[in-house]
Amino acid sequence: MAGSTFGKTITVTTWGESHGKALGVVLDGFPAGMELSEEDIQPFMDRRKPGQSKFTTARAEGDKVKILSGVFEGKTTGTPISLMVENTDQHSADYGNIATAFRPGHADYGYFEKYGFRDYRGGGRSSGRETIGRVAAGAICSKLLNELGITVCAYTKSIGDVKIYDFDLSERDNNSLAMPDPTAAKKAEEYLEACMLNNDSAGGIIECLITGVPAGVGDPVFEKLDAKLAEALVSVGAVKGVEIGDGFAVAKTMGSINNDSFRMEDGRVVKATNHSGGILGGISDGDDIIVRCAIKPTPSISQLQHTVNEKGQEIDIEIHGRHDPVIVPRAVVVVESMCAITILDALLSHMTDRLDFIKEFYKN
Amino acid sequence: MAGSTFGKTITVTTWGESHGKALGVVLDGFPAGMELSEEDIQPFMDRRKPGQSKFTTARAEGDKVKILSGVFEGKTTGTPISLMVENTDQHSADYGNIATAFRPGHADYGYFEKYGFRDYRGGGRSSGRETIGRVAAGAICSKLLNELGITVCAYTKSIGDVKIYDFDLSERDNNSLAMPDPTAAKKAEEYLEACMLNNDSAGGIIECLITGVPAGVGDPVFEKLDAKLAEALVSVGAVKGVEIGDGFAVAKTMGSINNDSFRMEDGRVVKATNHSGGILGGISDGDDIIVRCAIKPTPSISQLQHTVNEKGQEIDIEIHGRHDPVIVPRAVVVVESMCAITILDALLSHMTDRLDFIKEFYKN
Amino acid sequence: MAGSTFGKTITVTTWGESHGKALGVVLDGFPAGMELSEEDIQPFMDRRKPGQSKFTTARAEGDKVKILSGVFEGKTTGTPISLMVENTDQHSADYGNIATAFRPGHADYGYFEKYGFRDYRGGGRSSGRETIGRVAAGAICSKLLNELGITVCAYTKSIGDVKIYDFDLSERDNNSLAMPDPTAAKKAEEYLEACMLNNDSAGGIIECLITGVPAGVGDPVFEKLDAKLAEALVSVGAVKGVEIGDGFAVAKTMGSINNDSFRMEDGRVVKATNHSGGILGGISDGDDIIVRCAIKPTPSISQLQHTVNEKGQEIDIEIHGRHDPVIVPRAVVVVESMCAITILDALLSHMTDRLDFIKEFYKN
Amino acid sequence: MAGSTFGKTITVTTWGESHGKALGVVLDGFPAGMELSEEDIQPFMDRRKPGQSKFTTARAEGDKVKILSGVFEGKTTGTPISLMVENTDQHSADYGNIATAFRPGHADYGYFEKYGFRDYRGGGRSSGRETIGRVAAGAICSKLLNELGITVCAYTKSIGDVKIYDFDLSERDNNSLAMPDPTAAKKAEEYLEACMLNNDSAGGIIECLITGVPAGVGDPVFEKLDAKLAEALVSVGAVKGVEIGDGFAVAKTMGSINNDSFRMEDGRVVKATNHSGGILGGISDGDDIIVRCAIKPTPSISQLQHTVNEKGQEIDIEIHGRHDPVIVPRAVVVVESMCAITILDALLSHMTDRLDFIKEFYKN
Repeated sequence: MAGSTFGKTITVTTWGESHGKALGVVLDGFPAGMELSEEDIQPFMDRRKPGQSKFTTARAEGDKVKILSGVFEGKTTGTPISLMVENTDQHSADYGNIATAFRPGHADYGYFEKYGFRDYRGGGRSSGRETIGRVAAGAICSKLLNELGITVCAYTKSIGDVKIYDFDLSERDNNSLAMPDPTAAKKAEEYLEACMLNNDSAGGIIECLITGVPAGVGDPVFEKLDAKLAEALVSVGAVKGVEIGDGFAVAKTMGSINNDSFRMEDGRVVKATNHSGGILGGISDGDDIIVRCAIKPTPSISQLQHTVNEKGQEIDIEIHGRHDPVIVPRAVVVVESMCAITILDALLSHMTDRLDFIKEFYKN
Repeated sequence: MAGSTFGKTITVTTWGESHGKALGVVLDGFPAGMELSEEDIQPFMDRRKPGQSKFTTARAEGDKVKILSGVFEGKTTGTPISLMVENTDQHSADYGNIATAFRPGHADYGYFEKYGFRDYRGGGRSSGRETIGRVAAGAICSKLLNELGITVCAYTKSIGDVKIYDFDLSERDNNSLAMPDPTAAKKAEEYLEACMLNNDSAGGIIECLITGVPAGVGDPVFEKLDAKLAEALVSVGAVKGVEIGDGFAVAKTMGSINNDSFRMEDGRVVKATNHSGGILGGISDGDDIIVRCAIKPTPSISQLQHTVNEKGQEIDIEIHGRHDPVIVPRAVVVVESMCAITILDALLSHMTDRLDFIKEFYKN
Repeated sequence: MAGSTFGKTITVTTWGESHGKALGVVLDGFPAGMELSEEDIQPFMDRRKPGQSKFTTARAEGDKVKILSGVFEGKTTGTPISLMVENTDQHSADYGNIATAFRPGHADYGYFEKYGFRDYRGGGRSSGRETIGRVAAGAICSKLLNELGITVCAYTKSIGDVKIYDFDLSERDNNSLAMPDPTAAKKAEEYLEACMLNNDSAGGIIECLITGVPAGVGDPVFEKLDAKLAEALVSVGAVKGVEIGDGFAVAKTMGSINNDSFRMEDGRVVKATNHSGGILGGISDGDDIIVRCAIKPTPSISQLQHTVNEKGQEIDIEIHGRHDPVIVPRAVVVVESMCAITILDALLSHMTDRLDFIKEFYKN
Repeated sequence: MAGSTFGKTITVTTWGESHGKALGVVLDGFPAGMELSEEDIQPFMDRRKPGQSKFTTARAEGDKVKILSGVFEGKTTGTPISLMVENTDQHSADYGNIATAFRPGHADYGYFEKYGFRDYRGGGRSSGRETIGRVAAGAICSKLLNELGITVCAYTKSIGDVKIYDFDLSERDNNSLAMPDPTAAKKAEEYLEACMLNNDSAGGIIECLITGVPAGVGDPVFEKLDAKLAEALVSVGAVKGVEIGDGFAVAKTMGSINNDSFRMEDGRVVKATNHSGGILGGISDGDDIIVRCAIKPTPSISQLQHTVNEKGQEIDIEIHGRHDPVIVPRAVVVVESMCAITILDALLSHMTDRLDFIKEFYKN
């Protein structure tokens, strides 16, 4: 069944495999009239691009994005925006027994059972390269959100057991781990170096902070704003958990503490605290929206691993090649993109919620 | 925008408010030919029904479910199954300033901004009673899953800081907290009693264990099986976090530990460990599926709270009436229901994934 | 697979069988703040109700509609509006061989092959009574459209070979055939009486005129406004064809005639003619929208008919009981309802099409 | 709002403009394991390609299709199949006043009101070139249908007032008008030549015959098989009407004639006649499925036409350039493609309709 489309008022449909000719995305329903060029998108692509530090795979992809449709005279037309990145550095040489082995921690076995066979080159569709389309669409959605005064900003919260401590967002892009805390970044680098020495890999936590969303956005039942954010984030490979606001900590607290009291400030309703993470009952409460997700250690490690192949034989494999010892830094922009898409979709959906809105729109 | 429908191959559309005439659900796309009567559904309704212990609201609802359509001569017909529960015990007497106040921790303010006004009686659509429809549909989906050898079983993992320790699923229904550990249940009861003495409320964690799902179910990109489970669970009010398998613990572990190696057992592919929680790359791996969610403390507490009303005035409110000091035990069956719906939807979707399946189906 | 939901920004989900306990509909996504009571809906129900003339079935249903949710203090709340009509006059006595025979012209055989068995009482879900939910939802959508200055009005264009000639919409409700031409109505009554004498049935054409839709509504590719209207109308049982504007006549005309030239009138763009029926390239052009559909003769006739039963035996059947000799007059309000739902859905969807609209909406 | 996706179990998302860099389609949910190469698709592309006779535009596009994803080792993988055709012959030179004029019979004015501006080069997204993606996807769906013994075959039924008379499908590809009757084709050519002499254009009717669909496919309410076919066909630009089986003729007939009686033949249920066009109550009845649609005359004609421009000024325009005097012959493969996509989607959806099917599938 079709499962490569996300969103409702706007939709994002990604396509492409790790070692195919190209990867891309169709962003449909995007409003007409926004200035857009490839230069708006490329910086997002560059943030997820491989080969940027010793902690990311050495695969040398330029990941240059091309706009194929939906833009005319420098502005979006309201019709589908098709974006494509060509694969240039596919090493398809020799996969050896990897071609038929089910790599531990990977989707290989599930794919094989689901589809009967699989594209084993670099993981095919289950590769992290699938997120290229998400990031390209996310860049465009982020630009529109910015024009409405909304910012979406993700960053590395922790790698292994190294957490950020002094939060300074301006530092995020000054280190190779996307950590908004230079001291923590340094420690995390040491942690990763130790990891790499052991031919092992690490995980971490990514947080996303969304500011400027007015109260009243999101739907109260199945399409709660946090439910859609949770879906969006867990749909990113390697995510094994997601939290909104205080997240799992709410399980141990009390209502008297967890309830954020409302106050008036400059004629606006605000909250004294933000345990809710900006969402109550599935609807934005006007405060900053805060979500987090847990990223598992990269499953491709070069240690010897025991597994099974397509013939049902137990074997040992070593996975060589180009792999990130930690996926977290490159996934930061993916998380940010998925949040941007989700928030924009919800913002647009809100425009039809009230008869007074509709009468104002169609007043002539 | 419409947001009260969940699912794709099967859809669940809920309707109704806490103090309206009735609540209900339309379950569409459910396969024809399964035996079904109200007796199959009522036990699920009874598990979420209020008034069952001192830890749940005293509201005296029978919550008797009626099948209005979709069943003929005791079997599902393939057409929409409409289910309804009438509200009988609505105390709509006097809401006082609650009618116009934004209760901390509730969706009141968001609803007001979204829709311009709101049904303040018992929270209207944001009430926990909305889940009646989910549970009714979940009971039916669970029945079908059972016929395929799949079980979906949720239970209380922790309340406040009291966690289960000796896991014994047969004990779950022997205590009022749905804990599969009688010792922990006793401690949790004490914890809650202290909480109630302080006019406060508690949260907790619910876990759901799903057995018997074959490998190959779920979609590899946006409709990953875990992404849909995450959406399903966070769409339940009060859920602030969700985990699959090891969840947030993966952030601190290493690939060499987190990777579950494959083995052969009785001619079948199995995993030596289950850190993945039964899902890899969004597709079931044949192992038990394990998900968890964090439930926040009930926001309705009878302590004095500071807040704002619809006129933008700061006020103090006391919320009296019938409220659960902890929502966890009654939410267990809601979590189980949402998992059952999600799993069944994914199982049905898988049937069209391969040409060989289709040729076998249409072979005549 | 689920197929009982129609619409996107607003959704309409119908449920119920001819001889079940009740039939109904959930209208979701409907904007908050519109005044609504059962009195707004009942007149639509009465227009499709049986037993109103000798040309409609004598089944004595009151078809009283109840609002079960989504309205508070007389106004829509933005949450799902659940509407129900209870069945009161089910003659389920004895179906004889009809219970297992595939009635010619009916869906019986298809249902049997699709689902393995079927609810044979009055056609079950394939009964015209399924449209009760469509009409209830249509009444509500029509009310909102009226508040925006849009009218949706359907009428009988022809019955058998009797066509309307002098069009006078004010006459529509003065005859039992919903014909806006009293002379034609009289001839059509004579035609139908002859038909009934032969134990036969008749078909006809229904036209719907929609005024006040501004230019720019509808989507240019798969969700063309006319494509959605065509889907909506052919989804009504017994419809075998649909036309927009000049319809099939365009096949024989020339571009120089069929092109409607644009003019300015009172500062507005208008068309000199309306061959297009108000829709060009899937988008409304500001002119009246005109659609038509062909209704087949009622398949239930009391003549002896040859057919096959569930055991694969050829048999002869006579269908007795209460049937309309012509379904057209009662289907008029169904057509009107489906058009109203479709137009409202498209109008709401249009609100997010342009960045300038969005900036205006979120300007604060 | 997003509107460039069609289908449910499989989805087709098209993108691209007449004079953009490329056009394409993403076909998602297509089953794994079917052999597929560009050679399977190109013949369909060639059937809609311009420049094939004097009756079609002289634009010299090769319309070579490329598969960018979803195929591995010559077989579909179950992941999205991305297909692209590059535009090579864009004459974007000088549009003169066409750039700001609303061409009669075109979507220009609707686009302008909808989006605030428009890509005026060759009609942008409203160009017939948008159908490239539909045809590419349709070729793939047709191939799978063929493997199941289902054929989908469209042809020209009439051009202007010239209808086919002696039906011989083997003749369809022997004339430039896709008419399965050489005599009629000759007359139609003469009709068109007269038309062209007058700088005018013609319309016509396309019919599609679908054989081999078993009974039981399609959904009984909103997703009736004929409702989806109607939507699919009217979503093709220039279609102004659609019929199933006897279509509009049913309005004048009687039930005793229109009802197709069932018979047994070689142990199978068959119908003595096929007035229904193979669909009853929205579900296939096992007979040939027959649909027809009316295509309007090409609106681009080189006669002087009166219209209005974006500034609200009345002007006269002459549309020069490369236009088809009749769109019917090239639209035949588009109709065939949309039918193939719709039928395959319905066939796949049917696989989950019954518990016995599901138990058989998951029996191990």
